[in-house]
Amino acid sequence: MKLADITCTEFIDVLASKAAVPGGGGAAALAGAVGTALGSMVCNLTIGKKKYAQYEDIVKSILLKAGEIQKELLKMIDEDAENFLPLSKAYGMKKDTEEQKKLKEETLEKALKQACEVPVSIVKKTYEAIKLHEELVDKCSKLAISDVGVGVQCLRSAIIGAQLNVIININSIKDKEYVEKVKKETEHLVEEGIEVSDEVYDKVLKSLSK
Amino acid sequence: MKLADITCTEFIDVLASKAAVPGGGGAAALAGAVGTALGSMVCNLTIGKKKYAQYEDIVKSILLKAGEIQKELLKMIDEDAENFLPLSKAYGMKKDTEEQKKLKEETLEKALKQACEVPVSIVKKTYEAIKLHEELVDKCSKLAISDVGVGVQCLRSAIIGAQLNVIININSIKDKEYVEKVKKETEHLVEEGIEVSDEVYDKVLKSLSK
Repeated sequence: MKLADITCTEFIDVLASKAAVPGGGGAAALAGAVGTALGSMVCNLTIGKKKYAQYEDIVKSILLKAGEIQKELLKMIDEDAENFLPLSKAYGMKKDTEEQKKLKEETLEKALKQACEVPVSIVKKTYEAIKLHEELVDKCSKLAISDVGVGVQCLRSAIIGAQLNVIININSIKDKEYVEKVKKETEHLVEEGIEVSDEVYDKVLKSLSK
Repeated sequence: MKLADITCTEFIDVLASKAAVPGGGGAAALAGAVGTALGSMVCNLTIGKKKYAQYEDIVKSILLKAGEIQKELLKMIDEDAENFLPLSKAYGMKKDTEEQKKLKEETLEKALKQACEVPVSIVKKTYEAIKLHEELVDKCSKLAISDVGVGVQCLRSAIIGAQLNVIININSIKDKEYVEKVKKETEHLVEEGIEVSDEVYDKVLKSLSK
């Protein structure tokens, strides 16, 4: 049974438990999917409205891209769980002899890299979704503007949450080259993602205070 | 069928659609439940560990409180939907005659207040959950510290998301006394909630950079 296919209540219950998965990575992917879906909802509430006809094509293309990202983030809930299990097992390996110690270290290093993969992808996908909200905030129905704000806040928490999962893994990885590569891939996206999220949220607040 | 009892994928799909519910309020409640559940997970991963035995009682009491909040936030996904439907209907009422106009105005005012209720409760509950994370961050297993960060970020997005839903409703409410009451109930919680979330997140980052 896939995590994306259990009920919201069941997902929250198993998340709260001490079960190895889902953890912070899966939670970030879900929060990202929620944020992306709110963007899509706003697109759907804008499309067909005369007042926003000039933006119709752009909004339709945002909706299309958001739909893709939403699907990928939902898939990542389960991919993150699958990629975390080997690490969870590796932590339990014996290290009584020198040989066992060496084997455990090698297995851990490999498992840590594997556990890093999906959080890195979540950072990339939520960044894309944040950029879609940046485009959407000026072109959407003002009746739904608050939902752009909620959406971008969910995405902000998702990109930060994914990055925390990247950090906790690379902290234990010995391959410095790999660590630098991952940092280079993610850090600027997270920084810019937070910045853009805050800008979009400020626009929403201003629009609501008029 | 309750929204909390459909699968995560179905919830995200209906959220993305133009259906009247769920909207930003339900999304905020779910994000809050995810954040609260991560706090519980960290409690569960801390309880029973010798290294943190001195905090065992406090962590157990945090877990108990988080469990209650989690249940209430999940209930609020559906309560928010139920409370939003009358407003959605009221917007569609005719206003051709003076009589219809007056009836629509009265119905809208009542429906707006009803639609405000659950977002106000989400603000209160997510604030409580943020305070639990504040307590937890210094007393939990360091192996799970990143998840306190993800949890508090989800809660930060939830409290802001709920407040955006409060604002968009009170913007149309004419009863100034009611509006002031709601502002007084929520604004300081949101402000402090964001502040505490950022502090907890900074502590997590510092702990991870050691």
